[in-house]
Amino acid sequence: MDKKLIGIDLGGTTIKFAILTPEGEIQQRWAEDTNINDEGSHIVPDIVESINHHLSMYQMDASDFSGIGMGSPGSIDYDNGTVTGAFNLNWDHTVNVKKEIEAGVKIPVTLENDANVAALGEAWKGAGNNAENVAFVTLGTGVGGGIIMNNQILHGVAGSAGEIGHITIDKHGYLCTCGNVGCLETVSSATGIVRVARDMSEEFAGTSKLKQMLDNGEEVTAKTVFDSAREKDTLGLLIVERVCDDLGYALAMLGNSLNPSYVVIGGGVSAAGELLLNTVRKYFEKYTFPNVRNTTKVELATLGNEAGVIGAASLVVKG
Amino acid sequence: MDKKLIGIDLGGTTIKFAILTPEGEIQQRWAEDTNINDEGSHIVPDIVESINHHLSMYQMDASDFSGIGMGSPGSIDYDNGTVTGAFNLNWDHTVNVKKEIEAGVKIPVTLENDANVAALGEAWKGAGNNAENVAFVTLGTGVGGGIIMNNQILHGVAGSAGEIGHITIDKHGYLCTCGNVGCLETVSSATGIVRVARDMSEEFAGTSKLKQMLDNGEEVTAKTVFDSAREKDTLGLLIVERVCDDLGYALAMLGNSLNPSYVVIGGGVSAAGELLLNTVRKYFEKYTFPNVRNTTKVELATLGNEAGVIGAASLVVKG
Repeated sequence: MDKKLIGIDLGGTTIKFAILTPEGEIQQRWAEDTNINDEGSHIVPDIVESINHHLSMYQMDASDFSGIGMGSPGSIDYDNGTVTGAFNLNWDHTVNVKKEIEAGVKIPVTLENDANVAALGEAWKGAGNNAENVAFVTLGTGVGGGIIMNNQILHGVAGSAGEIGHITIDKHGYLCTCGNVGCLETVSSATGIVRVARDMSEEFAGTSKLKQMLDNGEEVTAKTVFDSAREKDTLGLLIVERVCDDLGYALAMLGNSLNPSYVVIGGGVSAAGELLLNTVRKYFEKYTFPNVRNTTKVELATLGNEAGVIGAASLVVKG
Repeated sequence: MDKKLIGIDLGGTTIKFAILTPEGEIQQRWAEDTNINDEGSHIVPDIVESINHHLSMYQMDASDFSGIGMGSPGSIDYDNGTVTGAFNLNWDHTVNVKKEIEAGVKIPVTLENDANVAALGEAWKGAGNNAENVAFVTLGTGVGGGIIMNNQILHGVAGSAGEIGHITIDKHGYLCTCGNVGCLETVSSATGIVRVARDMSEEFAGTSKLKQMLDNGEEVTAKTVFDSAREKDTLGLLIVERVCDDLGYALAMLGNSLNPSYVVIGGGVSAAGELLLNTVRKYFEKYTFPNVRNTTKVELATLGNEAGVIGAASLVVKG
């Protein structure tokens, strides 16, 4: 019988675990709260204890597994298997993640950046349809991403490959937390969409329920904006066009330079669904040149929260 | 003794050949005119004859070589070793390049797109300094390029990866031959620079020798524009800023999404040298986010016309 895989998705709030077949089918899954107290010093011991406890519960042991793949925030040192500067875990120091987990569970560990494991998951078992070339963008509080070409995740020389959120889409745009202006993240993250909504509302003279909500100080989120557009709110529709134009433009740059089989859109904002997808596709097609327009497809992510553990597990079988 | 390599750079005017050590040092080189008569049917037989003639002249035979790498215009079918649609060779049909050369010289052949072999050459032995991650842009009549990540040239799903010339740098820019507007090629190719010069000259009201030349109908090339800027011509300086802003912006997108060690600028326009390089660097740094700005370097190509044969030969040793 083929040995199984363990996928771990380490986040600032929860740690997700899964046991998978070598083909990427989830057989068991569980989660633990992340204990970031005491400089995050409990996190790795908690992971070891949780794995050992569950393997014992399922009457399995280390010999049943070919490896553990794990996604982590922070900067990964791939040669040494360490993580540095994962501030949401209170790890401002360097943590020997690979070595400590391997010592505790006796199964080899492969680490990867958390945005990249989500990309690997969608590429393998999600919207990427197991293609060799997939670009993934995640629209959440910020905008992140990962790029897989020739079946390998791209890191670049200093680990910043796939930082799609900091592509400049407007030389005269909003100031970004990175210090530049006009980064994709400033308009197409969940917070960016609301920022665009507020600014466009101020200049909007027509009738709009969304504008009334903004003027009344009611809570407006990215979801509110897309919902209002779906109800044909004039301002809502204008905002969606603007945001999807910018996103389609950034994704078209990736298309024109990389020509992947799929560009996959994930993260909380992707819950906006077909309206987001169809509007982004319109602009993606506008800004890509013919051979890319005809061969690179834009799709919504399909795995949701499971992308991380699946992509982490893929590190074991895809190296 | 290690077996040697043959690199071939097939172009519409000449076919360049080189014999190289496995380390990429050129030991012999020669060239033949490309005979595109009779639907280009003489080209492959001419290549076979030229190789056999030169090996005999150098008292070598097939057993002295580990392989032939070859760059060709047109669309490459990598599985079958064929070339289709190389219109500057009069090959509108599919040509069995790999099979026919292998039959004629008894050395295995690997094919690659001509823009990609130049990228491979610069990455291996030129400005790319043998780094694993290198992006290459060539500024000639058009704008092409090639991207090497993890030591592999990127093709994408339909061979269009590296088509840097068709990145949109201005949503309201010039119409491009590809049908889109605002492609990088429309402003930073040799012809694009002259187009920008003419348009900026029309709106320029100050004193400028370059404007006088344009108004008098004298011949103005990309070289004329950079030369005038070097002589502090006011209009020339403005044009160089504009062109390098657009080029730096496109290269920054590549930087932000791929974080290569080097972005290398080649092609005829790169003869503009330090003025081009320093101005592009200024804008590249403006549009890249900090970790990319600090780790991705912009450099001028160093191999000139030899990039093609060297990169072609690298296909044999780097696969």
